[in-house]
Parts: sequence; C-alpha cells; structure tokens
Amino acid sequence: MPKTHELTPGAPIKMADLISDGAHFCDDREQAEKEFLALRERLVALEPKLYADASRSLLVIFQAMDAGGKDSATRKVFTGVNPQGVRVVSFKQPTEEELAHDFLWRIHKQTPRRGKIVVFNRSQYEDVLVVRVEKLAPKSVWQARFEQINQFEEMLTAAGTRILKFYLHISKDEQKERFQSRLDEPSKNWKFSPDDLAKRAQWDDYQDAYEDVLKRCTTPWAPWHVIPADRKWYRNLAVCRTIVDALETMDLRYPEPTWKPGEYKID
Amino acid sequence: MPKTHELTPGAPIKMADLISDGAHFCDDREQAEKEFLALRERLVALEPKLYADASRSLLVIFQAMDAGGKDSATRKVFTGVNPQGVRVVSFKQPTEEELAHDFLWRIHKQTPRRGKIVVFNRSQYEDVLVVRVEKLAPKSVWQARFEQINQFEEMLTAAGTRILKFYLHISKDEQKERFQSRLDEPSKNWKFSPDDLAKRAQWDDYQDAYEDVLKRCTTPWAPWHVIPADRKWYRNLAVCRTIVDALETMDLRYPEPTWKPGEYKID
Repeated sequence: MPKTHELTPGAPIKMADLISDGAHFCDDREQAEKEFLALRERLVALEPKLYADASRSLLVIFQAMDAGGKDSATRKVFTGVNPQGVRVVSFKQPTEEELAHDFLWRIHKQTPRRGKIVVFNRSQYEDVLVVRVEKLAPKSVWQARFEQINQFEEMLTAAGTRILKFYLHISKDEQKERFQSRLDEPSKNWKFSPDDLAKRAQWDDYQDAYEDVLKRCTTPWAPWHVIPADRKWYRNLAVCRTIVDALETMDLRYPEPTWKPGEYKID
Repeated sequence: MPKTHELTPGAPIKMADLISDGAHFCDDREQAEKEFLALRERLVALEPKLYADASRSLLVIFQAMDAGGKDSATRKVFTGVNPQGVRVVSFKQPTEEELAHDFLWRIHKQTPRRGKIVVFNRSQYEDVLVVRVEKLAPKSVWQARFEQINQFEEMLTAAGTRILKFYLHISKDEQKERFQSRLDEPSKNWKFSPDDLAKRAQWDDYQDAYEDVLKRCTTPWAPWHVIPADRKWYRNLAVCRTIVDALETMDLRYPEPTWKPGEYKID
C-alpha cells in the first residue's frame, strides 16, 4: 500500500494518465482522516529518534502546480512535530548572487544535517520547470540538469540523507476552483496574484516539463511519488504514510552511552 | 499579569532573589494547563497573520542553565504552529570561521525575515556567559559586548523585529533532579554528558554572569523575562502568554489587495 504512488525507474509515464482524485484510491474520508492523525502521531514520535540516532537525515521535497497544496501539505503533515527538528525552506526567485553560481549552490546550503528533517517548498526542480517553460536558460543547459540532479541526490543519499519527492498532482479544474476561492473570499485575497493567471495559461507547457522531471529523475535512490491532490484529506494521508514508512524502515536507534551511568554522582 | 516576569530597565536585580518555583505564582496546575492550551491555539492562529502582514517579525530567545528547559519549552510552545512560519536555531560552539568574525556575525545571519518567527536556542548571550566564565576572551572584550548587544537589538527592533528574551530560571536542586533522571532512565542517557557536571560545578560563576546579563541587557526595546521554570507547566504558560501578548499588541493586518478581485476571470 505505501508504494501505491511511487514511480518505478525506467517505467513509461504520461501526465494525462495520472490520477488527481484521491477518491479513486480511498472512498472513506472519515476513515482516512482518522488514519492520517494516527500516522502523524507516529511521525511526531519518530522525529526525536531521528535526532538521537544522529546518523541519518530526511529531505522532503514538494513540487506542484500553483495552488497544488505545497504550503498546506507542509502545515498539515508537520504540525505537531517538534519545530526544533524540522526546517522548511521555500525557494523563491533566485537572487543575483544565487544566479551567479551553479543552480545547486543555493540548494546544497539548505540540505539537512544528520538527525534533522528539512522540507523543500519548491526545489532544484524549478530549474528544469520554470526555467524551461520561461526559457530562462538554453535547452542544452537545462537538459543537462536532469542528470546533475540525479547525481547530486545520489551523493546526498550515500551520505545518509533519505530523499522523498512528492509531486502534488491537481487537475486543471481543481486549480480553477482554488483560484476562484482566493478571489471570492476577502480573507484569501492576499494569496492571489494576477500573475497566477499567466502561469495557468501555460498549464500544458508545465505538464510537459513535469512529465520529463518524473520520468528522468525517478531513480532507485530517490523516486518520485505522484500524490493525487484534488482531495486534501487523501493528499495528507498519502504523504504522511510515505514519510512514516520511510522513517520506520531506517531502523533508528538511541545511541548507547560511551560512559557508565552508575559511575556518576551529582552533587 | 503578562508583565509579571518582565524586568524593568535600570531596576536592581539579585539572582538569589529570583523565584524559580512557578507554584509561587499559580497554584492550580490543571487550570494553568488548560489556559496554556488555549493560549497556544491563539499563537497558532496569530502566525498566519504575522506572515500575511509581512511587515514585522518575531525573535524569541531562550537562555538557561543546563537542563533548564530550552528544548522542551521550544517544543511545547511552538508545537502546532505551522512549521513553515517558525525556524529554530541552536547556537553551538562557534566554528573556526565564526570565531574569525565578530561575535554577532553568525547571529545576524539567522534573524527572522519579515513575516516569520525565529527561536534562538542559546544566542549572542553565550558570548558574555560561557566566554566569561571559561575566560575565552579578555574582560575588556566581553565587557564591551553588553552595549554592543543592546545596540544590535535596538537596530533590529527599529527594523520591525519584536525581540522576546526568556531566561528560564531553575534552582540548583531542580537541575540535580533533571540530571539524575538522565542517568537513571536509559532512554534519557543520551541527553547526558559527563561534561555537564563540570559546568554544574561552576553554577555560581554562571549565576553571576547571568545577573549582569539581566541587569545590563534589559532595555526598553528588549527587556528580559525571568521565567520560573522548576515547574514545566508554569514555565510553558508564562512563556506562551508573553508571546501571545506581544503578537496581539502588534496589530497585525491582512494586506489589502492592490488589484480588484471582481476584475479577474479564471478560464
């Protein structure tokens, strides 16, 4: 079950065939919400073990079309986890200094130290998505990045970082509804920007770019997970389940003391 | 009530007179825990307003003797707040590169951007505490730092950062009990280090150093709060109350859109 949404390296993939409606996988919302809360409790309990173990780290990457739920999935899944153990990094438009370096420079600075969880809200993948669609770099440059990203992720994995990549997949209709509610509800107005519509007009170009990302960067060490994200309750469940499953297979252990507890006396 | 533990600039202060037992201020633990949870709900709700407002930020500083509860207060108070809005920074022994700069260099890099909350677990104050007690710098150097810290904090405040400084005050007996439980309970062994005892032997020196910190760095813009921390339930309540009170007096607002919601149609 946890592998339901994990892509297989080398397998063919078509964006048009991907399912965005979680109801296809689970028709009992109430049960799903209950299971999600139980999983989140397990996540809360696993974080201090990751910290105490101090030999591995976890990097969670969220990518999605606008309004796909990156912010909301981060909040829902990690709320309750000790904030000292989790850091969320939002990658925005690169600065002049970041652009003056290779595209992985700003990413590498933010990877988790041993014992910690880092969540990327957008990531190195923007450099083969927006950069490609907006033609911010020549094709020869962004084409080379798929392999550069794979090698980078393989090196991180070898150093003890478990990488979980989530593409939160929503339909074009669902995006419309979410944008519309940002227009209709005054308290959500600030989340909307007229620029969002220009990007929506490029929907197909972005989907093509995502297809390449999912195909070319699903590796044995860091496969993509395509999460049906039209229904938030299913999205949260699927993401949380994948994270908990990954942490539980890490076999995290509290370190043995290098000293004998009985030998110390506190005055 | 929220000002109970806030020090007054220029007022005399003696460490020996400070109360570490929260029961002195509140004798109803059950009621305190209920109030704490309600306050935390308010904190959870204030964070997105701080983010949307995007003109101010919050810097929370925790200092304490070992086992004083910096980690645990951070976890208790901020658990439930959107992890995307809060970043926790733990300052450890400085690196060679950090030591090659002025003492505020590594601190300044970590201050919150507008709209965000940052929690410092240890801080610039270590440079007038451990540095002084361990004689890591000459007196003329660390003496000058009180004023340098005050000026730094005044500048941050002028730029929109609200600074809340908490000294979590425990008694020497309470520290003994907490160390003992780290020795006695195998699952807590990893939290103990034999070095902790060497530092405990310097208790009085550290208290003297803290007295100067509290006296010399309680300013109108960033006063210290001395939190009675022997009882964790009172500590959590007092810290959370101070933070909520500060955020509520900031008068945070959702920004008005610069565009007209009615003028946009989503295709």
